[in-house]
Amino acid sequence: MRVGNRHYRSLEVAADGWAIVIVDQTRIPAEFAQARLETLADVAGAIRTMRVRGAPLIGVAAAYGVCLALRHDPGDRSLEAACHALASTRPTAVNLQWALERMRATLVEVAPRDRIETAYRLAGKLADEDVAICERIGLHGERLLRDLAHRKPGQPLQVLTHCNAGWLATIDWGTALAPVYRAHDAGLPVHVWVSETRPRNQGRLTAWELGQHGVPHTLIVDSACGLLLTRGSVDVVLVGTDRTTRTGDVANKVGTYLKALAAREAGVPFYVALPSPSIDWDLARGEDIPIEERAPEEVADEMPVHNPGFDVTPARLVTGLITERGVCEASEQGLRSLFPSPGVRSGRGR
Amino acid sequence: MRVGNRHYRSLEVAADGWAIVIVDQTRIPAEFAQARLETLADVAGAIRTMRVRGAPLIGVAAAYGVCLALRHDPGDRSLEAACHALASTRPTAVNLQWALERMRATLVEVAPRDRIETAYRLAGKLADEDVAICERIGLHGERLLRDLAHRKPGQPLQVLTHCNAGWLATIDWGTALAPVYRAHDAGLPVHVWVSETRPRNQGRLTAWELGQHGVPHTLIVDSACGLLLTRGSVDVVLVGTDRTTRTGDVANKVGTYLKALAAREAGVPFYVALPSPSIDWDLARGEDIPIEERAPEEVADEMPVHNPGFDVTPARLVTGLITERGVCEASEQGLRSLFPSPGVRSGRGR
Repeated sequence: MRVGNRHYRSLEVAADGWAIVIVDQTRIPAEFAQARLETLADVAGAIRTMRVRGAPLIGVAAAYGVCLALRHDPGDRSLEAACHALASTRPTAVNLQWALERMRATLVEVAPRDRIETAYRLAGKLADEDVAICERIGLHGERLLRDLAHRKPGQPLQVLTHCNAGWLATIDWGTALAPVYRAHDAGLPVHVWVSETRPRNQGRLTAWELGQHGVPHTLIVDSACGLLLTRGSVDVVLVGTDRTTRTGDVANKVGTYLKALAAREAGVPFYVALPSPSIDWDLARGEDIPIEERAPEEVADEMPVHNPGFDVTPARLVTGLITERGVCEASEQGLRSLFPSPGVRSGRGR
Repeated sequence: MRVGNRHYRSLEVAADGWAIVIVDQTRIPAEFAQARLETLADVAGAIRTMRVRGAPLIGVAAAYGVCLALRHDPGDRSLEAACHALASTRPTAVNLQWALERMRATLVEVAPRDRIETAYRLAGKLADEDVAICERIGLHGERLLRDLAHRKPGQPLQVLTHCNAGWLATIDWGTALAPVYRAHDAGLPVHVWVSETRPRNQGRLTAWELGQHGVPHTLIVDSACGLLLTRGSVDVVLVGTDRTTRTGDVANKVGTYLKALAAREAGVPFYVALPSPSIDWDLARGEDIPIEERAPEEVADEMPVHNPGFDVTPARLVTGLITERGVCEASEQGLRSLFPSPGVRSGRGR
């Protein structure tokens, strides 16, 4: 996506063909800066400290982390250790586990001397797949936004989002924001209410992204969404997800559940943009999704703190899931209608 | 209440008998510091910048603001100008209007030469009334907490609160926290989940207060309350109010409504501590309560911001109102059962 006049991806392979270059998300909105990652430890550290964040993006970043580890040592132990180290960086997003499992499953079948090349090729494929998925989510979501906009001709469609599910959270386009970018580019008037997203303030990443692209937007504190919804200032809530059960329960950045409750109360549709690698086909209950507990220092230094990173929105509060294959009901039936044999299609082999 | 080994009130008349001494709430939790206010402009500025905050406290502070203005000029114009200037500092808390109306209604009947003494006497009475009201709320609320605690013997009662409705927000004791302090002092094990309350972080005031008093507590970001409630980690939600309609709709710090929604969804009781000067007997609909829009810089500097300070929780989401006269249903019937002739009793004369 655009930053000034240039096009960037959130993660690119460096010109030398082996290191990777990320957008350092801890420095936005103060400044736009890229950072070069050269080792497994660089990648694991960047994921843990959220210099690289967003469920789809950390999946691809982890795949490249495996590449960098194999450059150092392409042996079996190195491969297993890399997958293990990267998998433990963040527990909630299933994309991370999914990408590592795809890398591992393929690479164990390849002789160590051919692994590095295979690893880079596969990581590149995951990155390209992510872009294609986000483009398709954008296409299906744009149609949905158009339908909602028809109800209020001449006025901007008011979208409320939480956290950052834009291009910074993926390789390009974003998940929840892909429909917004497409709609805006096609001339549909859209305004986005951006929830600050304490404690890490990913809402500021979203506001920055939208600003770079020229999409009208307004930042609010997380607590303000209820007032906006009761006042009729929101037409649709649109968020991403870090893991969705096969039954349609959605884990996303903590605070998402409150927006879903307030949307239902106001009769406003609540949609989740869901790239299929975020579906956990093994889980039937949202309560079973592991919720990351992050460092207390992210919230405050001088007092006792509990800092869970995510919450779970039950399927019954979700109007629909916007996937790369279309929009479906948040239910096992809905997901199976679009993904009839997910084990094979997602490449997870289970 | 206690700070270290000394007892303080949030607002005291200085030793000289005319200036007032406040706790500067913008410096907590970094440091405990008092500040001396000597003029009408000092008081109006302190209210506007939230060095003095909390609906009950700003009512009393405004009353002393009138005293300070009259010291400078006890004439009719000075009295009217002071009331006008103080009333416009913050629009949502009705206590402010109520206290100023009480001061004005009495002082216009008094000759200018006697006004200063009358003003200080009446402001002192308002302060003492506030302490008495909070003590009674504490008494009734403590009974309620005991009843809830009986359901889980041996385990601490888990209270969730929002913003600061403790002694810092009143002259002493607090509203929502008064029952907590009483219960704790009486040996009932209580733990308080403290919601950060962006953008001004009044949750840190609450955490600081509770810490000074030895009450176990944990700070969370505002968005985390939904997860806590769905996990069964909260037994009761207890908040204050800046204005409650006669029908029981409750305006309180923005984010309160989301907590009420999540509490109802989890089957957890949601109580509002309601000193009667916070009741607006003239209003029947929560939507008609003016919601303060505060400066965007409180949220962020570099992007468009909407910063409403309050939201409205409809009576149907409120389990009960804890007043100085007992606990009642959040409805006109409930409030009238405790306050049958509010016009006379509250001294508002309407």
